[in-house]
Amino acid sequence: MFERPRPIGQLTAPDVDDFLGSLRAVFESRRLTNDGALVQQLEHRLAAFHDTRHCVALANAGIGITMLLQLFARGRRGEVIMPSFSYRGLPHFARWAGQEPRFCDVEEDSHALDPRTVEAAINSRTTAILAVCNCHSTGDIAGLCRAAERAGIPILFDSVDALGGTHRDRRLGGFGQAEVYSVHATKLLNGFEGGYITTNEDRLAALLRWQRNFCLAGFEPGGAGADEDLVLGVNAKLNEIHAAMALLSLDRLDETVNRNRARASAYRAMCDGLPGIQLVLSARGEALSNCARLVAELTLPWPLSRDQMVALLRAEGMPVAAYYHPLLHWSDALGDGPRQHLPVSEALARRFLQLPSGDLVSIGDIGSIGALLEFVAVNGGAIRSRLADAGVA
Amino acid sequence: MFERPRPIGQLTAPDVDDFLGSLRAVFESRRLTNDGALVQQLEHRLAAFHDTRHCVALANAGIGITMLLQLFARGRRGEVIMPSFSYRGLPHFARWAGQEPRFCDVEEDSHALDPRTVEAAINSRTTAILAVCNCHSTGDIAGLCRAAERAGIPILFDSVDALGGTHRDRRLGGFGQAEVYSVHATKLLNGFEGGYITTNEDRLAALLRWQRNFCLAGFEPGGAGADEDLVLGVNAKLNEIHAAMALLSLDRLDETVNRNRARASAYRAMCDGLPGIQLVLSARGEALSNCARLVAELTLPWPLSRDQMVALLRAEGMPVAAYYHPLLHWSDALGDGPRQHLPVSEALARRFLQLPSGDLVSIGDIGSIGALLEFVAVNGGAIRSRLADAGVA
Repeated sequence: MFERPRPIGQLTAPDVDDFLGSLRAVFESRRLTNDGALVQQLEHRLAAFHDTRHCVALANAGIGITMLLQLFARGRRGEVIMPSFSYRGLPHFARWAGQEPRFCDVEEDSHALDPRTVEAAINSRTTAILAVCNCHSTGDIAGLCRAAERAGIPILFDSVDALGGTHRDRRLGGFGQAEVYSVHATKLLNGFEGGYITTNEDRLAALLRWQRNFCLAGFEPGGAGADEDLVLGVNAKLNEIHAAMALLSLDRLDETVNRNRARASAYRAMCDGLPGIQLVLSARGEALSNCARLVAELTLPWPLSRDQMVALLRAEGMPVAAYYHPLLHWSDALGDGPRQHLPVSEALARRFLQLPSGDLVSIGDIGSIGALLEFVAVNGGAIRSRLADAGVA
Repeated sequence: MFERPRPIGQLTAPDVDDFLGSLRAVFESRRLTNDGALVQQLEHRLAAFHDTRHCVALANAGIGITMLLQLFARGRRGEVIMPSFSYRGLPHFARWAGQEPRFCDVEEDSHALDPRTVEAAINSRTTAILAVCNCHSTGDIAGLCRAAERAGIPILFDSVDALGGTHRDRRLGGFGQAEVYSVHATKLLNGFEGGYITTNEDRLAALLRWQRNFCLAGFEPGGAGADEDLVLGVNAKLNEIHAAMALLSLDRLDETVNRNRARASAYRAMCDGLPGIQLVLSARGEALSNCARLVAELTLPWPLSRDQMVALLRAEGMPVAAYYHPLLHWSDALGDGPRQHLPVSEALARRFLQLPSGDLVSIGDIGSIGALLEFVAVNGGAIRSRLADAGVA
């Protein structure tokens, strides 16, 4: 159907002339990296945006999660509690920080960690809780923070998909010990690579700034035996070029969200006419999200399985993905323990897929996708048999 | 003496118009990262330059060392043999990979790992040997590779400072299991951030390409129990902007080295007239290096200590550094064992400093630095007392 692929990332393009103009200034200043002027400006603007005391810009979001888990562990080898129904990188980040992942079940509606399963999983080896805010719901942030606080365990939020959202009327950014965001090209805010951490904790911010530049300067460790001696340094600096692009993207964030919501409305109108497929835009009365990522749920009487839908849309030029599959507690090859049973996650993992979204998908494209889905709804039986013959079930 | 600092890094500027022109093409292609056209071109050209089968471009050199150490450990928690007289990041990279550093002494002339100390340090916990090629000497690469091979231990080289050099008439790049290079702005080849690994091992290159993009695609793990299941994914991709800049820098590498050698000659001529200070340009008959980093050795009758020289040059606008100090086995706070005695490293750590070098230092600047050094040589006693009064010994 599409010759040029219709992807699932935001992929906002900056105005190239504006961007190259910023870069010329960067090159003339000869300060390309290491806490340059644009990185500082980006950090100030994002701290204001999130209403937090600190924003620490980083090379990417994954290294941010890894750094926080390494700091929170304070030299111990323990466990990090995380959802199984989430992004494939999470267990890797925990292991780089010397920790084992401990997978917990999620809530049926928010797809986020269930505070009750988290409380049951906390034990003497737990070094951190890594919670994830999803594209349609922040989850029970307050409940998770209470569980963490009662146990005296640090909690961080991977809030990448919820950028700009609120929880109980408070802007995301300052929950838990820290929140982590991405400015990768596929994300709402586009620095084409990069990430950042928001926090209200002064000492944590200072440690992160020290850690992101190899622990070389800017922090005085307390001497032998002090906690800071356990910090591992890394090259996780953001440079001026990514900061320049993220600043331009931040200038236009509202416009980007408006375009995303227009796409979401077009998809919603399309799904309204089709039985068994619906867009998942919010949970339990939460406000509409930034709509950078659009997830559809398939239920009966939709004629094709989720995996069949992924195969079909890919064949038509839409590199869509299951949301989320495989579950981390299935695929996490390094785990030694017996395979857990996480009933809610296992049910969720079969019925969602991401639809083409972001700035390479026009409203007209969504019309074409709607026509295709209508064709599937009508001719589902025949398509299902052909897919099954081709080995796609 | 200098209002604008005279630093110690290469800091080559690209032609800004050429660079911004490349970037415009990148933005028009909308392929900013993830194995883009310029990254592929850079990898091909660097593999040809190093005469290796593979070059894997990465976000930085440190993550390259970390990835290799993680791969070589195959899930074990063991020890990595490394020099103590080297760069501060090395033990951090080992720890991120779940390994403890095991520090070894170096050779008096090359400042590189001594194969005899390495052989004595190899034990059942050793997972890798991390050797470093220095700016004035590659060290005994052949001897180190023999020791590694006899013990069946993988060996990698941090060859950052020796880029373009040879060992026994063979271009660096293909020694050991892999070599790691940086294209940070302070290095000879300037992508302003970035690094790469060269190797002749096909499977290792495939694993690294898979690992650098979160282990998401491009490699089929062998299934439960297979070695590949132990690989930790990470975001270590190089993007097109860094590749564009590194390609422009590669085009002009010979010119850059020629400028560096002219600076080295000016320093050498200057030192020839001064007793007790000399430039360290090569060891045991090796060819002249790329001269991106220029190291001076202080011996009697030079009137000031190395630390006094560092303080004095810094005060005059030259942010120079001791080479290398503190030793890693002194400063490595996480080490549990008793402090080792590494006699050669301990002697070396007191007498070298890096001089201002690279493209922000003119031949005229070196003349001014020469005049300052002459003043120090003549008035050393008085300067030494004043520095001692100020607490600098």
